[in-house]
Amino acid sequence: MRDATDQQTTVAELREIIRQFVDERDWSQFHTPKNLAMALAIEAAELMEHFQWLTPEESRAIADQPEKRTAVGEELADVIGYALAIANELGLDVSLAIRNKMVKNIQKYPVDQFRGRYGRDDPNPPTKEAADR
Amino acid sequence: MRDATDQQTTVAELREIIRQFVDERDWSQFHTPKNLAMALAIEAAELMEHFQWLTPEESRAIADQPEKRTAVGEELADVIGYALAIANELGLDVSLAIRNKMVKNIQKYPVDQFRGRYGRDDPNPPTKEAADR
Amino acid sequence: MRDATDQQTTVAELREIIRQFVDERDWSQFHTPKNLAMALAIEAAELMEHFQWLTPEESRAIADQPEKRTAVGEELADVIGYALAIANELGLDVSLAIRNKMVKNIQKYPVDQFRGRYGRDDPNPPTKEAADR
Amino acid sequence: MRDATDQQTTVAELREIIRQFVDERDWSQFHTPKNLAMALAIEAAELMEHFQWLTPEESRAIADQPEKRTAVGEELADVIGYALAIANELGLDVSLAIRNKMVKNIQKYPVDQFRGRYGRDDPNPPTKEAADR
Repeated sequence: MRDATDQQTTVAELREIIRQFVDERDWSQFHTPKNLAMALAIEAAELMEHFQWLTPEESRAIADQPEKRTAVGEELADVIGYALAIANELGLDVSLAIRNKMVKNIQKYPVDQFRGRYGRDDPNPPTKEAADR
Repeated sequence: MRDATDQQTTVAELREIIRQFVDERDWSQFHTPKNLAMALAIEAAELMEHFQWLTPEESRAIADQPEKRTAVGEELADVIGYALAIANELGLDVSLAIRNKMVKNIQKYPVDQFRGRYGRDDPNPPTKEAADR
Repeated sequence: MRDATDQQTTVAELREIIRQFVDERDWSQFHTPKNLAMALAIEAAELMEHFQWLTPEESRAIADQPEKRTAVGEELADVIGYALAIANELGLDVSLAIRNKMVKNIQKYPVDQFRGRYGRDDPNPPTKEAADR
Repeated sequence: MRDATDQQTTVAELREIIRQFVDERDWSQFHTPKNLAMALAIEAAELMEHFQWLTPEESRAIADQPEKRTAVGEELADVIGYALAIANELGLDVSLAIRNKMVKNIQKYPVDQFRGRYGRDDPNPPTKEAADR
């Protein structure tokens, strides 16, 4: 089980890993949604710290630097761990929340208007490829 | 598929939902790890905003307020969505990263020293229950 | 000069301290507003970390704990230092920006509606004292 | 007074503007250092949002776009406003905190080692100009 990958792991299994860790330490008393949201934001900042002074290209190059990639993976684990802890405390289903939000995102960012544009503030027109579809 | 829950959804399936959304819009060009880490931190702040002025108890009470809970779920979806996008760009396995990090956390926070204490800064001794185990 | 207080120090003097430090290291090349905004958010998270697991009352009690208060002061210095670096790079006048924003805030939060209420989401009515004014 | 610039404004005067705004609304009750640190982090994220998808060059170009620069200035005002509110609640002198922290920073980043290098992780040697000094 210790080496089950994303292909082999349900979201519920990850949530259970977090829940058990918290329960064994009786930490639910500290895990108000407010505190967990702070903890999540702090971990997100620690993740960001790895990229702070890098150029965009240097930040992509971390994909090929095993040591730095692992360090980034640890921060990502902290971020997602706290996100799952929030889901545990509030009784939220993460998969449903993501599926529902992506339905909204698909409506908000139609392919023909946003292909190749990062958002409404992007002054560029959608790329030609979009018209071809 | 649209209503598959955390019990029924692998992490890989959620990653694929994000990957497809990004691909269809040709957004990988904007998705440097640096930009995604910023986006994640911004969404973490929006999540935090829901709890900003609430007492600890009021923040827990959101579990029983369907409308607010759903709003929090949307922010949580954004946070996890960007976390998965980072995993996609860097080729990280989220489940392995979390499993590995939790092994470290278990060593860092032994139950007998941290049961009922939020961390090293907590001036309180571990709770009695820990000694009983 | 080294011990000039808030009473004796103009905002321009603080900005000059930051500008000189950056210039001597030729760091303006790294100080894009984007990078500085990331750095500021990271320092804000480090400040937040001091209060993460504290109760509201415990967080107030830091005012009377000289060692912790100094540690918080260092993080606050980092936050404001990066804020002033942004002002330096973009040519913004901080005092004017704050004065202008406070005019907006005074209009947005009239005393008679918000006295004793943290914002529009606060379900409580304005406190009696407001009516007395 | 409304149009006093950074040259003409002491830090104490800015702190007084914030203190008065808070007092008139009886908001000190909500202004635990914990809540204010959250508020500051949230405003820092809103500032960051302006630069999220921009290239480094595009983020610098905001210096010449009056409308966007003003919008950034408003977020910066919010960030510094909350930082000053924290100083007010904890009784910290911002100018002394910054002066003391810069002494530490000067020791931590000697010019001859860090001129042209953003930090210890920067693989580049200090620039030639440093040797000339």
